[in-house]
Amino acid sequence: MPKLEKGQVQVYTGNGKGKTSAAFGLALRAIGRGLKVYIIQFIKGGFDYGEIYIVDKLPNLTLKAFGRGKFVMTKPPEKEDVKLAEEALKLAEKVVQSGKYDVVVLDEINVALSLKLINLKHVLELIECRPKHVELVLTGRDAPTEIVEMADLVTEMKEVKHPYKRGVQARKGVEY
Amino acid sequence: MPKLEKGQVQVYTGNGKGKTSAAFGLALRAIGRGLKVYIIQFIKGGFDYGEIYIVDKLPNLTLKAFGRGKFVMTKPPEKEDVKLAEEALKLAEKVVQSGKYDVVVLDEINVALSLKLINLKHVLELIECRPKHVELVLTGRDAPTEIVEMADLVTEMKEVKHPYKRGVQARKGVEY
Repeated sequence: MPKLEKGQVQVYTGNGKGKTSAAFGLALRAIGRGLKVYIIQFIKGGFDYGEIYIVDKLPNLTLKAFGRGKFVMTKPPEKEDVKLAEEALKLAEKVVQSGKYDVVVLDEINVALSLKLINLKHVLELIECRPKHVELVLTGRDAPTEIVEMADLVTEMKEVKHPYKRGVQARKGVEY
Repeated sequence: MPKLEKGQVQVYTGNGKGKTSAAFGLALRAIGRGLKVYIIQFIKGGFDYGEIYIVDKLPNLTLKAFGRGKFVMTKPPEKEDVKLAEEALKLAEKVVQSGKYDVVVLDEINVALSLKLINLKHVLELIECRPKHVELVLTGRDAPTEIVEMADLVTEMKEVKHPYKRGVQARKGVEY
């Protein structure tokens, strides 16, 4: 199994489009090299996204989504949302610690953190204590400062222009 | 063949990591929905990127890369770089005009434009005169103002932190 010599922590945050897509693009590149990738989606589960229909056909790529198929916006959050996000984090810890995957994507984990669905300290520990070859990719707007500080690479996706603002609806195959 | 009702123009620009990856992630989503995608890479051809090893295995996705396997940095640019970028643009025009592809990615075209390898007017015409179901995705830093103005969606990938700055080398499977 090819491994990275030293895995880094990449963060894709900001209010612009392209964070999850960038993570999937990175996954594609990694499996193109024979690396093993695990994508865990916080919050997104239950939504109908185009990429999930192709993932099964890809070698060395596993995807597991948690969530109730609706955006979590309530503060304080509902118990069910907390439970699902905690399950996602538990799986993330298992997957990362196993050392079997070269790249682990924690999609929308920043949102789960900023909504306080999961504990920041647990996530910082997960990052700190990972096997050293494991690359982590954390996505989602509002990445906490502590995550940004711990990361090796941080990109802020900044919305310059967005058609939703003009009342254009999300389109199947492009936005989902 | 499923088509979008109205294709938009998406631009991913800025100095941060994730622009090309976002375009490949979008491609993945689109083919997951049965849409047809064509990716044309300006400048990048000849480089060894991980994603090219998986693209052949994906249905409805075509990739063609132009370039000499090195970064074009000279001003004025060398004739060979101009020739290859113009060939890439000619193919782009053909692919877009054919209407056979739902999503056309013009990867690094912004760089080709800012280096004046290709003519901005020709690119604006390509955007303006495309069949209306065709979605265009333009990537690369330094997107010209005219492109940003014509786009429906623009995301600026802003570099917040980058390991290259600390002298870390690009790694196979992650950065290429």
